[in-house]
Amino acid sequence: MSTSSLSEQQRASLLEQCAALDTASLSDALDSLGIDAGLLGIIQQVPGTRCSGFAFTVLYEPVNQNDGFKNAANYIDEVPPGSVVVSSNAGRLDATVWGDILTHVAVQRNVRGTLIDGVARDIDTVTRLNYPLFSRGRFMQSGKNRVQLKSTQVAVEVSGVTIHPGDLIVGDASGCLVIPIDKAEEVIKRAIAVEKTERDIIASVSQGLSLAEARRLHRYDQPWLAAEAKTPSAA
Amino acid sequence: MSTSSLSEQQRASLLEQCAALDTASLSDALDSLGIDAGLLGIIQQVPGTRCSGFAFTVLYEPVNQNDGFKNAANYIDEVPPGSVVVSSNAGRLDATVWGDILTHVAVQRNVRGTLIDGVARDIDTVTRLNYPLFSRGRFMQSGKNRVQLKSTQVAVEVSGVTIHPGDLIVGDASGCLVIPIDKAEEVIKRAIAVEKTERDIIASVSQGLSLAEARRLHRYDQPWLAAEAKTPSAA
Amino acid sequence: MSTSSLSEQQRASLLEQCAALDTASLSDALDSLGIDAGLLGIIQQVPGTRCSGFAFTVLYEPVNQNDGFKNAANYIDEVPPGSVVVSSNAGRLDATVWGDILTHVAVQRNVRGTLIDGVARDIDTVTRLNYPLFSRGRFMQSGKNRVQLKSTQVAVEVSGVTIHPGDLIVGDASGCLVIPIDKAEEVIKRAIAVEKTERDIIASVSQGLSLAEARRLHRYDQPWLAAEAKTPSAA
Repeated sequence: MSTSSLSEQQRASLLEQCAALDTASLSDALDSLGIDAGLLGIIQQVPGTRCSGFAFTVLYEPVNQNDGFKNAANYIDEVPPGSVVVSSNAGRLDATVWGDILTHVAVQRNVRGTLIDGVARDIDTVTRLNYPLFSRGRFMQSGKNRVQLKSTQVAVEVSGVTIHPGDLIVGDASGCLVIPIDKAEEVIKRAIAVEKTERDIIASVSQGLSLAEARRLHRYDQPWLAAEAKTPSAA
Repeated sequence: MSTSSLSEQQRASLLEQCAALDTASLSDALDSLGIDAGLLGIIQQVPGTRCSGFAFTVLYEPVNQNDGFKNAANYIDEVPPGSVVVSSNAGRLDATVWGDILTHVAVQRNVRGTLIDGVARDIDTVTRLNYPLFSRGRFMQSGKNRVQLKSTQVAVEVSGVTIHPGDLIVGDASGCLVIPIDKAEEVIKRAIAVEKTERDIIASVSQGLSLAEARRLHRYDQPWLAAEAKTPSAA
Repeated sequence: MSTSSLSEQQRASLLEQCAALDTASLSDALDSLGIDAGLLGIIQQVPGTRCSGFAFTVLYEPVNQNDGFKNAANYIDEVPPGSVVVSSNAGRLDATVWGDILTHVAVQRNVRGTLIDGVARDIDTVTRLNYPLFSRGRFMQSGKNRVQLKSTQVAVEVSGVTIHPGDLIVGDASGCLVIPIDKAEEVIKRAIAVEKTERDIIASVSQGLSLAEARRLHRYDQPWLAAEAKTPSAA
């Protein structure tokens, strides 16, 4: 299953479900399937924002020779709505690959967020627009004449995890993770069960159970089994 | 003097006094007694929160073999009100030992905050509950199957400083520190004097003195002496 | 051109212009002149604040021997209005060189902000006063008896960039940079052109142009030329 093989309705459904799930629950679901997903060191830059969307990948490389001014990348014109831009700049902290112009265009194109293996600038503007930006940090020095676009829509590696174009990216205050698109349905199903189990545990504790009792009751060890087991008994 | 040897009233009094003191003043008092106290790299995760309380320590160790799913730690059922949970996970950044369930239970049990030598998740929930959380950072990947509880209420080392169960932990926007419980009374007395001296200096500067003059006047070099000296003269 | 050779009116004009410019635009202008300016790792500590002003430099050195209590530095009494204090503490993270007293005095003296190659404390107070503070981080442990004032108003190096007394410092959410005072006029002129070009591009994109078209139209490659070229044609 690649992104393009999904119907518009399937894509919309995935986005809607991801938007309602925390990275923690999704991460537990991915763990249960043995999938590495968490992108260590990629940090939420605008407090209170979350994002989820299909990865549109952008790969940068250093400018090797000083062969004159290079135009900044205009790839944003091709990014479809529902995307999260994933800019891979080798974790570089001294050359930005995102700023105010890209943010304005992204908002206008219904791009749902940006993840940078590196840094961004114009953070005041990004904050004012409440745009979901996740990166290693912030700096103001342009990538112009320092790095250049190598390619778009290729597999990139961030924090040791491979991101393919069309994979789902989800980010919140706890960080960013990637869900391989061909596992998305199963991951989301399990994550929903995880969240239900956690809500049940919190409710039981509020009613006076100890955490140990509440976790036993709600099968914290394997929440997707608990959720399946309880669905019939609830009928 | 161990925590358990303190009366309920003494414990309540220590908590009340610490809640009114900044880490900066407490650190100056600890410095004056030659006590290492600041926990470098432990950062406030929810802006505007502070915490103070008695350390309830929790020590984690890596899961060495893949011997099946392990239940998460249920130690929280034993943490008394007035505590700050101190979770020692060797500074590990890729496996969380705190999240939304523990936060909910902690709030319900009147636990006053959490300090993690490592990372936490569900930061959106922690933020919404305005819970004082101090850690090296944030991530969403669970500690489940990565680390396991080794013991509780043992001495742990964070950033080169030893924390004993029952020591006082204080955290604010400038960071976290630990006050050995048997020095708490003297430390607090000196910190109160430091804060008084600083307020007096700020007031004198507002009235037109230079900082050099104001500091000389209020014995900035040894504020606890100044405070003692001035109490009688004020009478 | 040194700071002291500038008239009061020239100084006021530089401050006013810098206050209206982002670090990103200034950095592009500095890049175009081949000037290293960005101070990597110096981070905004109070969200929403910006600063710009003339560098008043303060150089610290470690206390080598334990030769008794040293008074904290009182240099702040000499810092003129319109300054940004630049405290060089060799990037040290465990000994603060800024706190609540200095912040109160700085606010009173119309000092416009502080940049620390190191850490600061009393961050709750600094935040409450909405004071522009930029540093490598936060800690609560005093520099007293750990570091001492070596000199003021000497050239210092921060993140590989030399800052001379009187240079312009500008900081916002994207970080801090330094503008050599003898290049300030040209840098500001170019930065104003950069910002105009960016606004024009954003406006064109809002009206339906692709980013590629908008950038071509507004000469994104060399905005200062575009700005010059367009001024007459606008007449």
